[in-house]
Amino acid sequence: MKLKLGDIAEQLGLELRGDPLVEIHGIAALGAATTGELSFLFSPAYRTLLQNTAASAVILREQDADDCQIPVLISDNPRLAWARVATLFDSTPTPDGRIHPSAVISETASLGANVTVGPNATIEGSVTLGARVCVGAGCFIGEGAFVGAGSRLFANVSVYHGVSIGERAIVHSGAVIGADGFGFEPDWAAMKMVKIPQVYGVVIGDDVEIGAGTTIDRGALNDTMVGDGVKLDNQVQVGHGTQIGASTVISGCTAIAGSTRIGSYCLIGGGVGIIDNIEIVDQVEVTAMTLVSRSITEKGRYSSGTGLLPSRIWKRSIVGFARLDDLIKRVRGLEARGQK
Amino acid sequence: MKLKLGDIAEQLGLELRGDPLVEIHGIAALGAATTGELSFLFSPAYRTLLQNTAASAVILREQDADDCQIPVLISDNPRLAWARVATLFDSTPTPDGRIHPSAVISETASLGANVTVGPNATIEGSVTLGARVCVGAGCFIGEGAFVGAGSRLFANVSVYHGVSIGERAIVHSGAVIGADGFGFEPDWAAMKMVKIPQVYGVVIGDDVEIGAGTTIDRGALNDTMVGDGVKLDNQVQVGHGTQIGASTVISGCTAIAGSTRIGSYCLIGGGVGIIDNIEIVDQVEVTAMTLVSRSITEKGRYSSGTGLLPSRIWKRSIVGFARLDDLIKRVRGLEARGQK
Amino acid sequence: MKLKLGDIAEQLGLELRGDPLVEIHGIAALGAATTGELSFLFSPAYRTLLQNTAASAVILREQDADDCQIPVLISDNPRLAWARVATLFDSTPTPDGRIHPSAVISETASLGANVTVGPNATIEGSVTLGARVCVGAGCFIGEGAFVGAGSRLFANVSVYHGVSIGERAIVHSGAVIGADGFGFEPDWAAMKMVKIPQVYGVVIGDDVEIGAGTTIDRGALNDTMVGDGVKLDNQVQVGHGTQIGASTVISGCTAIAGSTRIGSYCLIGGGVGIIDNIEIVDQVEVTAMTLVSRSITEKGRYSSGTGLLPSRIWKRSIVGFARLDDLIKRVRGLEARGQK
Repeated sequence: MKLKLGDIAEQLGLELRGDPLVEIHGIAALGAATTGELSFLFSPAYRTLLQNTAASAVILREQDADDCQIPVLISDNPRLAWARVATLFDSTPTPDGRIHPSAVISETASLGANVTVGPNATIEGSVTLGARVCVGAGCFIGEGAFVGAGSRLFANVSVYHGVSIGERAIVHSGAVIGADGFGFEPDWAAMKMVKIPQVYGVVIGDDVEIGAGTTIDRGALNDTMVGDGVKLDNQVQVGHGTQIGASTVISGCTAIAGSTRIGSYCLIGGGVGIIDNIEIVDQVEVTAMTLVSRSITEKGRYSSGTGLLPSRIWKRSIVGFARLDDLIKRVRGLEARGQK
Repeated sequence: MKLKLGDIAEQLGLELRGDPLVEIHGIAALGAATTGELSFLFSPAYRTLLQNTAASAVILREQDADDCQIPVLISDNPRLAWARVATLFDSTPTPDGRIHPSAVISETASLGANVTVGPNATIEGSVTLGARVCVGAGCFIGEGAFVGAGSRLFANVSVYHGVSIGERAIVHSGAVIGADGFGFEPDWAAMKMVKIPQVYGVVIGDDVEIGAGTTIDRGALNDTMVGDGVKLDNQVQVGHGTQIGASTVISGCTAIAGSTRIGSYCLIGGGVGIIDNIEIVDQVEVTAMTLVSRSITEKGRYSSGTGLLPSRIWKRSIVGFARLDDLIKRVRGLEARGQK
Repeated sequence: MKLKLGDIAEQLGLELRGDPLVEIHGIAALGAATTGELSFLFSPAYRTLLQNTAASAVILREQDADDCQIPVLISDNPRLAWARVATLFDSTPTPDGRIHPSAVISETASLGANVTVGPNATIEGSVTLGARVCVGAGCFIGEGAFVGAGSRLFANVSVYHGVSIGERAIVHSGAVIGADGFGFEPDWAAMKMVKIPQVYGVVIGDDVEIGAGTTIDRGALNDTMVGDGVKLDNQVQVGHGTQIGASTVISGCTAIAGSTRIGSYCLIGGGVGIIDNIEIVDQVEVTAMTLVSRSITEKGRYSSGTGLLPSRIWKRSIVGFARLDDLIKRVRGLEARGQK
């Protein structure tokens, strides 16, 4: 894939300063780019890299353009320009619009125009796939599930019965949507745990991305809901009946228990744990590996845990942590004595 | 699916107060239920919701029945009644008892009566499937594995060679049972890690549920054991040679290292980490995201970590945590001075 | 599988003291071994177990051999001997060198000598598989991917387009290599997150093991790199553009964010979180469930978090933790007063 710099400028609607005929075959970071690659200056802090870059062109802000010896594309948001230019060099295979003969598709499934179904996929009865949906190799889509137009499931995704996925979703390999929520009730007479059937489903909005190995459980007393524009990274766990507001972004390995309501435009994770049955308002940011052990009622940034320490110092600190309550009492005692 | 309230009362063995002909087509929470839905009063704290619920009937304790304007079913354990009534409205597709022609099944596999095997599943040599076992689409069951009667593997489960699963197990999509435990030994002469073959297997008891994406490794010097009635949520990791006692319940994203012995009737997780080669007695409860870094010899509730804080306060606390040992010494110094 | 003790001694190059005709059919721990099993004394601390073991032979150090009533194999590294002897009793099915007829393989894929492809696997165009590669049932290998000689993918592994895996790799079920890194850029004008296409790939070295359910994302501005001899346990997450140095060992459920550089010969995890865009030098050890929130510039052992406590004590400590900054100020105040 080779593009002329002038064509890129035109497609992105950016001002070009330099030779429009320069050929670009890819993108790279400033420090690593070589001839034929387009790069980016995301922050003035890295302006010195401009001097020595071997990139053939760079996207930067107007105010950073002066020093630059190579052709530039002027953007007031180079990171957003990056997102757009990268699509031009994306090598992700395009769905071919074919139903592979090895796929097993129920006669009662309804497939929209230009649907692609990969090898060895299974689509059960009464499933509806919107136009241009792409179901990867080895995927399973259970009875009565719905996938909206333009959505793409990569290989080996599992979608249980009755799950609803909106339009333009991207679901990565190994994701499991609609498995049973984790619900058991002790029957002490029989000394065993009785399974609570998870009779509700999962409803996922439009423009959602779901990472590899992420699991979203079906609900017991209400649907699990993932709002429009939500982005879930890899290995995220979403418990039954939980609701995630629109445009919230959740990083890898975050675990969310059941029946919790998370607001919109939150930034969570990774490795965060969120307990069940709490509420988090809009625009909350939670730093990595925090345990959210109670509702959050005000927007802002929240954390838990301790900082990284050499283990020998840490060992002394955790001993101190265990005695903190005692320490506070002793300080109070010293203060009381001092006041006499 | 529509049921008459009188029939539900009869099936659950509950006293009905109200019209037995009321039609019920589903269940819902008190605050969300609409006409035709059956709801539940799990706690007297929510009695006020009874006034305005649109549910057509409610299951509650005798002592909560007086205020109620709608038909009631009397239960001394509404949560257990919920578990039972939900089975009546469960839409999970029932196994059809067919072997799909696209499944690849070794001639030396032994299949019991009424076994279901979904599309594109693979069952290797000498596998034994008990009566009524259901193997979902895309599952893999390796050489010599055993699955007991009535067990169900949803789509895309992987079971390695020699693994044994008991009766009435439920295994959700993406689960992997019997992959190699993580064992390497440094060969310093060759400056490399040498793999320790994991020659033992995994033995899973009866009535076990295994969540989506959960992984249970095979053992190196003994079998990994999961006791009867154990419930594992999604994305749990069970290391090689670890033993989990009967009826223990482990929530999502908990990671258990190898050769650890966990007792019976424990409640663990989610997001808990448990190190290797320790022992946890029966009836231990471990709160979310705790690191269990030593054996637990007494039943009770255990925790680690810190509470949720606004990040600006948390940053000061983690600085203090790093200096805790010094702080304790200073307090000791103040106390000594005070005693002079 | 039965071997004579003399033959085992010869194959491992170990000195035998005792009857070479003793038959050995397996290995087990000293305390659990029965007749026909070979065991190990890894540490002198367990020498008393030698008295009562029912093992038919034991591998131990010269200096531990005197007490022993049963045949012994002398090794100056019994753990390494264990790794080697275990291969003799490994029941993992050997690849049969057949391409299963149900596998879907592009005509433009290139398969080396003695490649095995299991049932219902999918191999897309221009994929290259080296000699003796084994692709398990239900695996997906995307366009243009490369798998080096002698590598083995167990069932239901997903490898995206363009991913490169070295020689002698072992990849366990449910692993996903090359899914999109998690990259979005807010477009505030449109109030939505714009996806940054992840146009780079994943490059994995030789002799790498990748655990069940582990996910390794493709890069946005550079390839994600996993060095030679790296061992990743189950459910590890490796973010886009991250680099892991040779022979580093990472335990289960560790999450590594994007663009981070980890050195060689590190020991990390399990359950560790490592933030993005940091650097960790060689030979760093990180204890379980630590959050690595900054670069580590010196080798050594690092930790975060707190120790395990009974929950009632822990609750008081987390209250103290929240007030640590205040406590330090109060101690400073007491000290200042004392100095007057």
